[in-house]
Parts: sequence; C-alpha cells; structure tokens
Amino acid sequence: MKFSVTVILKKDVLDPQGKVVENTLASMGLNSIKSIRQGKFFQIEVDEKDHTTAEKKVDEMCKKLLVNLIIEDYKISKI
Amino acid sequence: MKFSVTVILKKDVLDPQGKVVENTLASMGLNSIKSIRQGKFFQIEVDEKDHTTAEKKVDEMCKKLLVNLIIEDYKISKI
Repeated sequence: MKFSVTVILKKDVLDPQGKVVENTLASMGLNSIKSIRQGKFFQIEVDEKDHTTAEKKVDEMCKKLLVNLIIEDYKISKI
Repeated sequence: MKFSVTVILKKDVLDPQGKVVENTLASMGLNSIKSIRQGKFFQIEVDEKDHTTAEKKVDEMCKKLLVNLIIEDYKISKI
C-alpha cells in the first residue's frame, strides 16, 4: 500500500528557503508569484494490506521521525 | 490561484536520503516499510485568474528552476 506524505512549515513559521526560491524566480522574470513555501515530500510503501492499519503506521512514522510537530504540518494521502 | 508541486527522483535514480530514512525507521522498530523515497514539495500561489495561464506559469517555474528534469519527475496539482 502506497502513501504520499507532504510536510510543510506551519503558516506562521518563517520559510527562508521558500523566500529564496521566490526571489530567484522574480529575478528570472517570473514575477506573478504571490508566495512560495517549500516543504518535504515522502513516498512511502508499506507492507500492510489493511488500509487503516497501514495509514496508522505511516502516521506513527510521521510523528516519530519525519515531522517536527512544533513547526510543521503534515498530510497523508493514499496514492 | 494556489498550486502544489511535488518533485521526486525518477524511479531508477538512487535516493540515498530516502534510504537513510528507511534504515532509521527500521532501527526504531517500524519495520513494515517496503520503500521510502524523499522529494521536495512546493506550495505556490500565483497572481493569475485564468487556470490554464496560471498552471503554465507554474510549469515554467518548475522547468526553469525547481526541477532537475534529468533526474527528477514532477507533478502539479491545484489546491
């Protein structure tokens, strides 16, 4: 069972990496950008047949390692 | 108009970062993982009302800066 996890900084947390991308794009002439935020993306394949159990496992992985819950939000979706 | 862009290494390209995450999770006892691949995620807000034009702009950003087309695949979706 395959899941995708997107991790992104919470709305009120400064995102310097995204800011740099935004400025670079603007300096390249692509200036119709309102905002860019950058985050992480994981494609996780779990060896589990039951959807609920599999998603619970992925959620555990996120909470234990992949996501810093203090400053980041995450979203799990099935692929 | 808001888009999300996910960038991930092509299937045949080695992903050492993902491998490290996989091994770390396994050593933490979470061992029902088949595979993990890590990529980048962007949340882009474009100042454009027409959907096609906006998506074209985001696609241009990807091709010019955000994605290395030789080793990476990307996917744009509207949020």
